[in-house]
Amino acid sequence: VIITLTTDFGHKDGFAGIMKGVIAGINPQAQVIDLSHGIPRQDVTSAALLLRHSVNYFPRGTIHVAVVDPGVGSERRPILVAGSGRFFIGPDNGVLSLACAVSTPLQAIHLTNAAYHRNHVSSTFHGRDVFAPVAAHLSLGIAPESLGEAIHDFVQIPWPAVQATGNTVLGEIVYIDVFGNLFTNITAGDLAMLSKGTLAFAIGDVVIQGLASHYAAAAPGTLIAVVNSWELLELAIHRGSAEQQCGARIGDKVEARVI
Amino acid sequence: VIITLTTDFGHKDGFAGIMKGVIAGINPQAQVIDLSHGIPRQDVTSAALLLRHSVNYFPRGTIHVAVVDPGVGSERRPILVAGSGRFFIGPDNGVLSLACAVSTPLQAIHLTNAAYHRNHVSSTFHGRDVFAPVAAHLSLGIAPESLGEAIHDFVQIPWPAVQATGNTVLGEIVYIDVFGNLFTNITAGDLAMLSKGTLAFAIGDVVIQGLASHYAAAAPGTLIAVVNSWELLELAIHRGSAEQQCGARIGDKVEARVI
Amino acid sequence: VIITLTTDFGHKDGFAGIMKGVIAGINPQAQVIDLSHGIPRQDVTSAALLLRHSVNYFPRGTIHVAVVDPGVGSERRPILVAGSGRFFIGPDNGVLSLACAVSTPLQAIHLTNAAYHRNHVSSTFHGRDVFAPVAAHLSLGIAPESLGEAIHDFVQIPWPAVQATGNTVLGEIVYIDVFGNLFTNITAGDLAMLSKGTLAFAIGDVVIQGLASHYAAAAPGTLIAVVNSWELLELAIHRGSAEQQCGARIGDKVEARVI
Repeated sequence: VIITLTTDFGHKDGFAGIMKGVIAGINPQAQVIDLSHGIPRQDVTSAALLLRHSVNYFPRGTIHVAVVDPGVGSERRPILVAGSGRFFIGPDNGVLSLACAVSTPLQAIHLTNAAYHRNHVSSTFHGRDVFAPVAAHLSLGIAPESLGEAIHDFVQIPWPAVQATGNTVLGEIVYIDVFGNLFTNITAGDLAMLSKGTLAFAIGDVVIQGLASHYAAAAPGTLIAVVNSWELLELAIHRGSAEQQCGARIGDKVEARVI
Repeated sequence: VIITLTTDFGHKDGFAGIMKGVIAGINPQAQVIDLSHGIPRQDVTSAALLLRHSVNYFPRGTIHVAVVDPGVGSERRPILVAGSGRFFIGPDNGVLSLACAVSTPLQAIHLTNAAYHRNHVSSTFHGRDVFAPVAAHLSLGIAPESLGEAIHDFVQIPWPAVQATGNTVLGEIVYIDVFGNLFTNITAGDLAMLSKGTLAFAIGDVVIQGLASHYAAAAPGTLIAVVNSWELLELAIHRGSAEQQCGARIGDKVEARVI
Repeated sequence: VIITLTTDFGHKDGFAGIMKGVIAGINPQAQVIDLSHGIPRQDVTSAALLLRHSVNYFPRGTIHVAVVDPGVGSERRPILVAGSGRFFIGPDNGVLSLACAVSTPLQAIHLTNAAYHRNHVSSTFHGRDVFAPVAAHLSLGIAPESLGEAIHDFVQIPWPAVQATGNTVLGEIVYIDVFGNLFTNITAGDLAMLSKGTLAFAIGDVVIQGLASHYAAAAPGTLIAVVNSWELLELAIHRGSAEQQCGARIGDKVEARVI
């Protein structure tokens, strides 16, 4: 069974490695895959977006653990959501919700059964003391309902909706990757709904004519629009950083229009 | 068998990956877990502290390899220390010593048997040429005493002692994590030894009243004191960096007192 | 079977983790080892050098996947090169060529058989949609010739030649590691070809007398010359950064001479 980890722990302090030690101590056969430990600190939405666009690439039965958890130790609930052959474990702060939204949640559990946590649960590191041991026990076949009490709702981060007419879609930047590529919330499906015609894309005062088939279709340094690997409209610069060149930030508006 | 790696190699140059290749060539069944490759360059003490506070979370029999090794190629000895069902491998510069101190060292070996090293040992990368192959052979069941000569001491980094009275404990910052949280050498046990009363914590001119139960117990931006996942007194800022806000550095004094 | 990954994807966005998910979905037994995800963005030559100097440390049969791919989605070919018991998979932009040059290429394949790619191939992430699934199928024993059409050449990055006389070798900096050590293209073999005598090394106006046996042979802060773990002449500073102290860059000339 695969267990993935998505955290804002970085790569300096051993926190992710310790979670793997805890998992290996419970289920030596579990295969742990790091999805990211580079989530911007306490950026629950970035983690939720990344998880949403990653889960389709993992086999059925994979357990996804996400620990971006500014509320660790508070009353926020540790939860498990199961559905569509996937399992999600993490704090109930929305970090799981965008990925759950592309699954069919069958079951949500408040992880109250301390028998599946470490004996001593710290107030600062539930990744180690709650989420890793629960994931490892689940990977051994423990039933979700043994891990705690059924719940009927959990915190949702809504997918940031676009505003669409027949000729325009108004969206915004929702994620920026390490290359400085600007991911918007405008999907390939949104673009397909537009009336026929040439597309143009506007960010601030800049207008891009047409959708590029791939990065290298443009000269280095040119701002282009592409449909990216998340199936989202992305503004990018071949061999450059659109984030830097545009001075763009998450939340900036982007409009697609038929011209 | 699990082999953990703790180094200052970073993530750019493939050094850790090469160590894993060497291990896999000797024991394809060994499970390698990265504890950290982000130790500040040549910071032996940080690596020693991280290893000390990680080993309890790995199963019995785990082999911990630590390579923070400014003296590579010099007369400093490559060593193995075994005890309490754990094995530690690395240079004899103190990097293993804080973790060994929480084990019961039964056996220390100077790794002189070249039969368990790579054929050609470079003078700049003993992680690849000595420590990885020795760890892999050990994981196959080679006895420690086959790997070299018994030794009776090795370099110790002393745990930095606090100065305690019945009403105060004077300690210092010993580690700063990626979030800018300030780890002190004052343990939960030290605090428990104080006389009854409300606690206050002083760093420079700043005084914190009381011990917080968890990060989110305070308003964002407030400096708090918590007992952290290493069971140490930590100064932290919920959704902020205590390192930046306090301008704090390793070695700065922190005092806990009963008020 | 081991599959290594070498990319410029960084550690923030989950791209490498997604490749591992794809591989695990096809061959759960494959063992994936990260060689580097920290290649400077789109620096094909750095990736090619790192791969060349890493492959000898992996067991026979290892599959090396390198995705530094500014031309993704363009006409550049996805290829497989097999030889000397190693397999290399990546874009045909030279990233594989330095490692292939130390193997004996027996077979090169243009990866045209879409049956071994993901159903939907994006134009921006062939690591996920082409290279990871091809590597996974290869690791299951699919024959290289089933993966596409035989080709008879692929893009070569030439090893940057030195200019040698009996008394001098003129080379250049070809790689800089995370410690700021300056790797030149002057090999230990080049130095061995020089006439007998004391060696000196010049970079800009600075001259280093003699070859150091290891880093700690010099006082901290002193610029030294060593033969490093890639068997290349390296300029380094014990407990410091030669890159910073010399203001050096890739391409800067370095001369070794007999004095």
